[in-house]
Amino acid sequence: MTGANYVVIMAGGVGSRFWPMSTAECPKQFIDVLGCGRTLLQMTFDRFAGIVPAENIWVVTSKNYKGIVKSQLPDVTDSHILAEPCMRNTAPCIAYVSWKIKKLDAAANIVFSPSDHLVTDVPEFRRVISRSLDFSARLHAIVTLGMKVFRPETGYGYIAVLPDEEEIKPVEAFKEKPNKELAEKYMQSGNYYWNAGVFVWNVQTIEKSFRTYCPDIASVFDRLDAVLGTDSEQEAVDRLFPECPSISVDYAIMEKAPDIYVFPADFGWSDLGTWGSLHRQLASAADENVCIGVQPTLVDSTGCIVHMPAGKKVVIEGLHNYIVAEKDNTLLICRIEDEQQIKDFSK
Amino acid sequence: MTGANYVVIMAGGVGSRFWPMSTAECPKQFIDVLGCGRTLLQMTFDRFAGIVPAENIWVVTSKNYKGIVKSQLPDVTDSHILAEPCMRNTAPCIAYVSWKIKKLDAAANIVFSPSDHLVTDVPEFRRVISRSLDFSARLHAIVTLGMKVFRPETGYGYIAVLPDEEEIKPVEAFKEKPNKELAEKYMQSGNYYWNAGVFVWNVQTIEKSFRTYCPDIASVFDRLDAVLGTDSEQEAVDRLFPECPSISVDYAIMEKAPDIYVFPADFGWSDLGTWGSLHRQLASAADENVCIGVQPTLVDSTGCIVHMPAGKKVVIEGLHNYIVAEKDNTLLICRIEDEQQIKDFSK
Repeated sequence: MTGANYVVIMAGGVGSRFWPMSTAECPKQFIDVLGCGRTLLQMTFDRFAGIVPAENIWVVTSKNYKGIVKSQLPDVTDSHILAEPCMRNTAPCIAYVSWKIKKLDAAANIVFSPSDHLVTDVPEFRRVISRSLDFSARLHAIVTLGMKVFRPETGYGYIAVLPDEEEIKPVEAFKEKPNKELAEKYMQSGNYYWNAGVFVWNVQTIEKSFRTYCPDIASVFDRLDAVLGTDSEQEAVDRLFPECPSISVDYAIMEKAPDIYVFPADFGWSDLGTWGSLHRQLASAADENVCIGVQPTLVDSTGCIVHMPAGKKVVIEGLHNYIVAEKDNTLLICRIEDEQQIKDFSK
Repeated sequence: MTGANYVVIMAGGVGSRFWPMSTAECPKQFIDVLGCGRTLLQMTFDRFAGIVPAENIWVVTSKNYKGIVKSQLPDVTDSHILAEPCMRNTAPCIAYVSWKIKKLDAAANIVFSPSDHLVTDVPEFRRVISRSLDFSARLHAIVTLGMKVFRPETGYGYIAVLPDEEEIKPVEAFKEKPNKELAEKYMQSGNYYWNAGVFVWNVQTIEKSFRTYCPDIASVFDRLDAVLGTDSEQEAVDRLFPECPSISVDYAIMEKAPDIYVFPADFGWSDLGTWGSLHRQLASAADENVCIGVQPTLVDSTGCIVHMPAGKKVVIEGLHNYIVAEKDNTLLICRIEDEQQIKDFSK
């Protein structure tokens, strides 16, 4: 039995590391981070809309953001935007939407994707996703995407692969965010990849994995099963969803399940997790300044990322490697290297 | 014959060194530079209102700024706000208002003052001005104020005095802005003072000085004399004033006339000519940060001057000795030491 392909975009994050550009009221995925006219969520939708029909795209978000998602993604069916009443990390999110899709298509084949990452080589991304969907449709397997390692990054999880001739290779182990020394080793070894947080698996595999490794989460959605798709759904979800443990799917399932595969890929991926990573992704001019939203006058200034409301006149002199960002009458000036302090400022 | 005392506030400047706080449309004298609720012009008026009646205070400004002056100084008689049709430096400005006042009071005794300086010891300022007015009422003399030299400043003109036991001493010479080496010598010699641009003289001395040293300027106002105070005044001034040479009173008269005196004084004076001088004037906290208009969050930041619209939230991390200023949707970030470049940014 082979079902249709589905995409689930997980858009419930509340990251504050891009403050003041992103805030708890409007997190990063809803922001036009690149100043290109499309938010990261919209760009994620656009990437997938090329390989599955819009009606097969689902979004799971927080109750607070349902309105933003609806307004940013008018082509997504209303009933395909699911609202979590509280944050419980990725495992309950995946179970909720999977139990929903399973009722419509018991052989559904689903990609789960973060909503706030950047991909610069979209055709290659689509090829990788399509191949992964073919793979997971045929096998009781979970395919994760492994990103080529360019630097000894300590901010990402890693995936170690087993030697294999195939494009999609068996996973040896998932590795948590390493320290600098370990990250160097991972990079040099050549068989480690960054975990991009994208998973492709079919709904039978999902259901079986939850029943095996997260019976408490499976139980919550079994109890909800009768009301899913009815007018009582939201009320029941609001009541029972909070019973789920807060746990990531990596930790809950990926690190335990057999038959996990990784697709080592390179499609210009960035998680844009911090101002620094956004700067690294976009800096190309000789002065390494990145300007979004405005064209400031920059004098004797290098390595800066400037993100200001359109129409603002900005003059910057003598600034090197700083973030200068403004939104909603809030201005931040901060050394890029000190950006981990931003989460304190945003409180 | 002894006339009344008058004050003339010269408020026609168009300085751009405080950009973006000050602009050609609203120069420094019209700005609440200190965030105290009063503009520099208003603070100048307040200082003098303690020693002469408000109806004896006159303001000369540019035609463009007459409306601003009227709104900022509602207690100044309308007809005492004179509008120059174009900039001709201080000598024509002084002649214009003096020819006007002379018609009302042929023995008028007048203080001329810039509108954009700061004085922190107002009682001492008033004592110095009152003493100077007494002096110039009795003598055919010009009294200038000489400010105590605290540092080898290259941005000010200097006045050298002749040794004298009196509080008001004869001037030896006016000195143009020196280079650093010369400024050091001036400071060490002990008989040099900064020229604060404040002059006290009676109207007979003024008239005689112009007839002797600036006959072309005197001639312009002699031709205007018949219409001064009539409905035709502004039209005639607009036509003839531009004939005046553009020249400072220092250069036109002070450097040539005999009987010039200086009153060495110390009343917490600053010309606030630049962001740096404003910072120097106001920095007192241990971190040497000066914040006007807002209370920003400052982390690992020292020696900065932050001037932002009230209500703005500002977070600054890792910035040392910078200007951060915003007005009318224009943001400037600039090293204080590089502030001479600001005039280029403001164009």
